[in-house]
Amino acid sequence: MKQSIGANTIAFPVPAWAIGTYDEDGKPNVMTAAWAGICCSKPPCMAVSLRQATSTHGNLVARKAFTISIPSENHGREIDHIGLVSGRDVDKFASLGLTAARAEHVDAPFIEEFPVIIECRLLQTIEIGLHTQFIGEMLHRLSPCNGNVKSL
Amino acid sequence: MKQSIGANTIAFPVPAWAIGTYDEDGKPNVMTAAWAGICCSKPPCMAVSLRQATSTHGNLVARKAFTISIPSENHGREIDHIGLVSGRDVDKFASLGLTAARAEHVDAPFIEEFPVIIECRLLQTIEIGLHTQFIGEMLHRLSPCNGNVKSL
Repeated sequence: MKQSIGANTIAFPVPAWAIGTYDEDGKPNVMTAAWAGICCSKPPCMAVSLRQATSTHGNLVARKAFTISIPSENHGREIDHIGLVSGRDVDKFASLGLTAARAEHVDAPFIEEFPVIIECRLLQTIEIGLHTQFIGEMLHRLSPCNGNVKSL
Repeated sequence: MKQSIGANTIAFPVPAWAIGTYDEDGKPNVMTAAWAGICCSKPPCMAVSLRQATSTHGNLVARKAFTISIPSENHGREIDHIGLVSGRDVDKFASLGLTAARAEHVDAPFIEEFPVIIECRLLQTIEIGLHTQFIGEMLHRLSPCNGNVKSL
């Protein structure tokens, strides 16, 4: 026996990934996204949904590139904080003592301290409603040399 | 220190959800999808990526509707099997002893035995590459009356 619980947007599991972009002045920013994931095998693509109100949305439209920095299980505090404040108000790298590294293949920064990094160039922009979905082609992926990490 | 590991489509976590559709004759089918998730809050939308080779892809294009049946932790065998065989070869409901129930708001079946059901009408079809991404508006959501279930 089932009951209706409306059309709410709760479903598990979701990731907690940091989306990295540069703003128009080249300042790096990151925000936490949970509505993100793989969406195609060939070309290998990642999708991430963002509200237009976020700094990252504007940066991504302008720069057409983003990174995904996947935290380890030790980065719970950082990935939480990155999702709570806006890059307009706070330099999240400075406030958390994190290092903004420049991606090798796209015009976007990533979090050096996070173990797994995916570099994406913007392929498609899908206007859905309150959220815009950005589909990026995965150009490059970095992980620790020892490969021995438990990601969140 | 990081190393390049190419552009492979591995990222965790991903869900294991059953996508329900009717074929042209009204026969219910389900397949397991891992590249799926929430993609918009208003309207509430779910995205699922499917290869054109799947039965579900054709069904979804024709019927413009799908369900997501989210398994409980007790349905590991079923959700695995549903992802291994094609609806062209096997009636997955019959072979697993599962019940195909008709969704209330869309033209698609769901798995009665699974605890959480999301009904979606097709909103957008995004051709990416080997995978097509279907974006569906979430019209309805069902869960057990006692609400006491641990989903996968």
